[in-house]
Amino acid sequence: MALVVQKFGGTSVGDPDRIRNVARRVVETARAGNQVVVCVSAMAGETDGLVALGQDLGEGDPTPREYDVLLATGEQKTIALLAMAIHRLGHDAESLTGWQLGMRTDASHNRARIQEIDCGRLRAVLDRGAVAVVAGFQGVDDDRNITTLGRGGSDTSAVAVACALGADVCEIYTDVDGVYTTDPRMVPSARKLARISFDEMLEMASLGAKVLQVRSVKFAKRYGVPIHVRSSFHSAEGTWVTREEDVMERLVVSGVTYNRDEAKITFRKVEDQPGVAGRIFDPLSEAGIVVDMIVQNLSSDGTTDMTFTVPVGDYANALKLAQDAAAGLGAEVEGDDAIAKISVVGLGMKDHAGVANRMFNVLAEEGINIQMISTSEIKISVIIQEKYTELAVRALHDAFVDAGGDEPREEG
Amino acid sequence: MALVVQKFGGTSVGDPDRIRNVARRVVETARAGNQVVVCVSAMAGETDGLVALGQDLGEGDPTPREYDVLLATGEQKTIALLAMAIHRLGHDAESLTGWQLGMRTDASHNRARIQEIDCGRLRAVLDRGAVAVVAGFQGVDDDRNITTLGRGGSDTSAVAVACALGADVCEIYTDVDGVYTTDPRMVPSARKLARISFDEMLEMASLGAKVLQVRSVKFAKRYGVPIHVRSSFHSAEGTWVTREEDVMERLVVSGVTYNRDEAKITFRKVEDQPGVAGRIFDPLSEAGIVVDMIVQNLSSDGTTDMTFTVPVGDYANALKLAQDAAAGLGAEVEGDDAIAKISVVGLGMKDHAGVANRMFNVLAEEGINIQMISTSEIKISVIIQEKYTELAVRALHDAFVDAGGDEPREEG
Repeated sequence: MALVVQKFGGTSVGDPDRIRNVARRVVETARAGNQVVVCVSAMAGETDGLVALGQDLGEGDPTPREYDVLLATGEQKTIALLAMAIHRLGHDAESLTGWQLGMRTDASHNRARIQEIDCGRLRAVLDRGAVAVVAGFQGVDDDRNITTLGRGGSDTSAVAVACALGADVCEIYTDVDGVYTTDPRMVPSARKLARISFDEMLEMASLGAKVLQVRSVKFAKRYGVPIHVRSSFHSAEGTWVTREEDVMERLVVSGVTYNRDEAKITFRKVEDQPGVAGRIFDPLSEAGIVVDMIVQNLSSDGTTDMTFTVPVGDYANALKLAQDAAAGLGAEVEGDDAIAKISVVGLGMKDHAGVANRMFNVLAEEGINIQMISTSEIKISVIIQEKYTELAVRALHDAFVDAGGDEPREEG
Repeated sequence: MALVVQKFGGTSVGDPDRIRNVARRVVETARAGNQVVVCVSAMAGETDGLVALGQDLGEGDPTPREYDVLLATGEQKTIALLAMAIHRLGHDAESLTGWQLGMRTDASHNRARIQEIDCGRLRAVLDRGAVAVVAGFQGVDDDRNITTLGRGGSDTSAVAVACALGADVCEIYTDVDGVYTTDPRMVPSARKLARISFDEMLEMASLGAKVLQVRSVKFAKRYGVPIHVRSSFHSAEGTWVTREEDVMERLVVSGVTYNRDEAKITFRKVEDQPGVAGRIFDPLSEAGIVVDMIVQNLSSDGTTDMTFTVPVGDYANALKLAQDAAAGLGAEVEGDDAIAKISVVGLGMKDHAGVANRMFNVLAEEGINIQMISTSEIKISVIIQEKYTELAVRALHDAFVDAGGDEPREEG
């Protein structure tokens, strides 16, 4: 008997028939002899309606505490309906809201962090043979205020519950089959990975693969609970995200990702003296703008060029702040939002030299100019002109994945 | 400084603009120097949507526990939105769900009874000068399950909170101006009562006046908290429901009510022997059918006729059960759902003889036959043919209220 946590997103529970489908899947798992916790999001569309009401009554600036009270009704609705549907299939189930579940978070409304889960009630439900139907996305702070975890919080809820219970697996049901070597819509030869390590998944997710929330992968990594990303439409195996030791083959490159949601800002001819970086980045930080890549090069004339990227949604604001800072520094500012970040990710990079070199060569052969480079232990990212995105992704996938850095992991 | 509990129903919070209106009213009361608790229902229409979803997923028989989890989202939504709207008017407010409020009930899902209210959090909110925005209709049982109070539960929530806090008044905002001597749509001379006693209100409410839930009046009576029933559309005084001692004049008849939602079943020629009543009423009780009036008369031939009334919605079922019972008793059954119950209610009846007699004479003068009679200390009810409802109500109102049993209470 295994302890399985299953997570279904808003689309999977988007209407009564879909909720019934989820109920069938859950009951099948339970009847196969497993203890089952199912974690759900608000029905698709529900959250949009709640957000609209909150923006209306809050006049564009809803009170964070009350906004959480409002949004939390979405998942509460789903858990009640799913528990009913499971009952109609003749299986016991009990719904648990964030506070009933003992999902304790800090008091940061709208983006709360999980602190601990009191598993007493969950275990009691499971021990009596019932399915625990838990509300994703929501928690409760020490003063018994309702909190929500922010965007994609339901993945995090599910994984956190799995970690707290020491579950055998956390299954994330989604509208894709699993994690692919790259975007299959862009590269038809993209293959589903059977297994991937937490660290690889973190790089893939944060780089735009968008299958799993970064926070949930971090949780799973810390507690060593495997995540199984799989389709909610059929029962074939998806992709297991596991500890590095459990990934049998270490591919040099297991994935090629892209992100077109960043923009680039360059300071030219900045005097190279202490405190300059602070004068550039402090205003951005105060404005809550997250800077991703930063590159600095010393010029021969004693000035320096500094380039960084920001989310494209913050670009206009960041550019204005940059221009203000540049005026004080006697520097010039350029901006470009027609860029893309292309990354190759793979555990095997740690042991294989020359991946960066090969990557640059592949791009050069296609005539693609590299504007910025950033590297980590298992990832190399470059910034290129946006219009070359598809070409770059295909060429790198061909070179590293299809041709095989080593033997690629095969997938059924 | 007074402590005021205000209750607004689903229509009063039916859309964003109405919620903003309620917020303005609440803030006015607070700025006039009062501590304010506001208790709200789900937005009009919201509950219907939730009921439909629950019936769908529950296939007509939703799990009671989960049904409560589902329905409770309705009020949770309203409290969040109202608290936001109050914030936008520059006043502090905090929403409290049933469990945050400490609204402890028994475990009878869908029709829970309030056991106690832990006022600690409520007092803390009020003490810091904020408005407490509490969810009506919902509570939490000893095992931290969400419960709901059943139909009209929000009135009961509001009054219970007022009682627990020892509030100076519980204001019930509604779409009528107050409690009238009879239905103004039926009798244009009907007058709004300035004050009415709890007991009179109980008889009025349970007899079909439908302004206040019976349970909430019982609560207010037990704790001696006055209820002020008033319009949500303007600020004129409505009707105060208070202790008998606080009702200055004791009208012989303060109201004439009618109820067309009952049906009548008669057993003819029942042998008059012990145990017969049980054989008639036990099956009804087992079917959850509430019997209202019961009249029995001994005939000269040693058999008896037994007549009782049931809600018209249960009539078909009750008639079938009665026929089954009659077969075993060798009796005959007749039914009639074209009846009305007309009642006169008044504290002064206790001291004035002859009210019943006068009532029967008034009806006789109009040629209305009385089928059943039932009396209490402050009420006389008769069953008549339904088609005479308006005629009976007008005649009785003319005789007792307009003509004045004593000096009628005047109302501004």
